[in-house]
Amino acid sequence: MINKLINKIEQLKAPIVVGLDPMLSYIPDHITKKAYAEFGENLKGVAEAIWQYNKDIIDATYDLIPAVKPQIAMYEQFGIEGMIAFQKTVDYCKEKDLVVIGDIKRGDIGSTSTAYAVGHLGGVKIGDKTFAGFNEDFVTVNPYLGSDGIHPFLDVCKEEKKGMFILVKTSNPSSGEFQDQLVDGRPLYELVGRKVAEWGEAHMGDSYSYIGAVVGATYPEMGKVLRRIMPKSYILVPGYGAQGGKASDLAPYFNKDGLGAIINSSRGIIAAYKQPQYQQFGETNFADASRQAVIDMKEDLYQSIFANK
Amino acid sequence: MINKLINKIEQLKAPIVVGLDPMLSYIPDHITKKAYAEFGENLKGVAEAIWQYNKDIIDATYDLIPAVKPQIAMYEQFGIEGMIAFQKTVDYCKEKDLVVIGDIKRGDIGSTSTAYAVGHLGGVKIGDKTFAGFNEDFVTVNPYLGSDGIHPFLDVCKEEKKGMFILVKTSNPSSGEFQDQLVDGRPLYELVGRKVAEWGEAHMGDSYSYIGAVVGATYPEMGKVLRRIMPKSYILVPGYGAQGGKASDLAPYFNKDGLGAIINSSRGIIAAYKQPQYQQFGETNFADASRQAVIDMKEDLYQSIFANK
Repeated sequence: MINKLINKIEQLKAPIVVGLDPMLSYIPDHITKKAYAEFGENLKGVAEAIWQYNKDIIDATYDLIPAVKPQIAMYEQFGIEGMIAFQKTVDYCKEKDLVVIGDIKRGDIGSTSTAYAVGHLGGVKIGDKTFAGFNEDFVTVNPYLGSDGIHPFLDVCKEEKKGMFILVKTSNPSSGEFQDQLVDGRPLYELVGRKVAEWGEAHMGDSYSYIGAVVGATYPEMGKVLRRIMPKSYILVPGYGAQGGKASDLAPYFNKDGLGAIINSSRGIIAAYKQPQYQQFGETNFADASRQAVIDMKEDLYQSIFANK
Repeated sequence: MINKLINKIEQLKAPIVVGLDPMLSYIPDHITKKAYAEFGENLKGVAEAIWQYNKDIIDATYDLIPAVKPQIAMYEQFGIEGMIAFQKTVDYCKEKDLVVIGDIKRGDIGSTSTAYAVGHLGGVKIGDKTFAGFNEDFVTVNPYLGSDGIHPFLDVCKEEKKGMFILVKTSNPSSGEFQDQLVDGRPLYELVGRKVAEWGEAHMGDSYSYIGAVVGATYPEMGKVLRRIMPKSYILVPGYGAQGGKASDLAPYFNKDGLGAIINSSRGIIAAYKQPQYQQFGETNFADASRQAVIDMKEDLYQSIFANK
C-alpha cells in the first residue's frame, strides 16, 4: 500500500492527505436539514448529514488527492450511527481508489492490539470465511505501550500489505510534556523515532517502509532531526494551516527525492467555504470551495518546498 | 461515580473488576451455534454470540462485583456489529447497576479528544436534545500527547460526574521501552504519575479523585512508588492472574484505608471454565465457573492483602 500511496503522490504531484474530520458546525444547513427531515434530529440524522457532507467533498476532490484521513473520533462521538458513517466514508473513498488512512491512534498490547489491527487493517476468520470490520489502508498507532503494542500491527500490515503511522512527535502545544523529555540527553520522541526506523527497515516497500511516523508541522526543527533518524519512513504531517504550520516550514520533512512526507489538512479543506478567501463559493457550493482549497494547497506546497529544489 | 465505585467496593468487600474481553475461542459451542443458526456464520452471528456470552457471565456475577471493564478492541474487531455488542453490554451492565469502565485507551488532542470524551462519557447536543453515544462511567486514556489530550476528558468527567484511568505503567513485558526511560534520573512513568496526581487533586470525589491511573500488577515495586506519588488516585490494576501478577504482590497498590486500587481479571474469570480447577462445571455451566472464580479471587485478595492488616 505504501507503493500505491507513493505512486499516487508522484502522479498527482500532491503530497497531500485530506482530513475528513467533520464537525457538526462545518456542515451546511441544507445538508443537515435534509438529513434531519429524513431520519430525525438525532444520532441517525447527524450521521447521515456527515456522510452526505463527506461524499460531496470526496466527489469534488478525489481526482486531485492521493489519500484521505478520516478521524474516527469525529464519528465515534455519535455512537453506532457515527461508526456506520465512518464505515461508509471509508468504503466510498476506497471505491474512488483513494488511500485511506484511519486516524484511530489506537494502542494496546498482545491480543488486544491484534484485535485493533485486524479490525481496521485485516479481517477476522469466522468459520471458513474472512470478514473485514473497517478496512482502512493505513492506521495511526500510539507507541506508549512499547513493542508489545506495535508488533501485532506489524504482523497484520505485512500480511495484508497495508501500513501504519506511529505517533512520534505530535503537533499540539503540550506534546512536549512527555515527548520532549530528555532520555540520555536526547528527547524521548527521538528514541521513539529510532524504534520506528528499526521497525521500518524490517518492513520495506519498494523505496520506503510501510511503517511511517506522525510528526507535527508545528515543530520543523524536530522534523528535520526525525527525517534524518527515519530516512525510510514516510512522515504523516498534521498541523498545516489551521494549527499554524506553514508550507515554508515543511521542506525539512521531505527527503532529497522530493518524497517521504505527506501533509494533512482537515479544516482548511473540508470547511474551506467558511474562510474569507473562499467566501465567494457560498455555503451551497462548499465542495467546490474544498476543491479550490486543495488546488491552492498543492500550489502552496510546490512553491515553498519543491520550486527551489 | 468514583464515590459509587468505592461504596460498592466497600459494601461487597471486593476491589475487583471483571474484564469483559471476549475472544471467540472462549465462547462455548452451544452459544455460537445458536447465534450462527439465527444470524448466520458472519459478523452479526459472532456479535450475537459475544453478547449472549457476556450476558450469561454478567447474570452470574453482577451481585458479587462492583464493576466491569469491557475491552472495546475485542468488539471493534468485528466492525459495526461488534460495536453494537459493546453497546448492548455497556447498557446491560448499567441496568444491573454495575460501574462500567470502558477500556478504550483513546488519546488525541483538542476537539478530537473532546469527541472521544463526549462519545464515551457524555453526550452530544443535537438540536435541543442531548444524545449519548456509548455512555460508560469511566474510560482508560493514553497520556502520550500530554495535557492537551487529557483536559477535554477532565472537563467532561467533571460535568458528567464520571471518571478516567490514565495509563501510567502498563502490565506488558515491553512497557518499559518508553515508560521506564529515565528523565532527570527518574522513570518517565513517575513523571506521568505526578501529572495524574496533579490532575487528580483538582478533581476530587469524597475521599478519592475521579482521575485514576492504570498500573500493571506485574510491576509491584513500581506500584509501591506510584501509590505514594498518587495518594488520592484510584489505581486500576491489570495483569492479575493470566498475565502473571500474584495477589501477594498487590498489597502495595492499596492505601492504609484498604482502598485505592481495583484489580482487574479478564480471562481468569470469563474463561474460568477452561481452567483445570473449574473443569467440573463443564462448558454448559461456564457462567457458574465464572461466579466461582470471582468468589475465589475475592478470597485470594482478602487473604493476601487484607487478612494481616
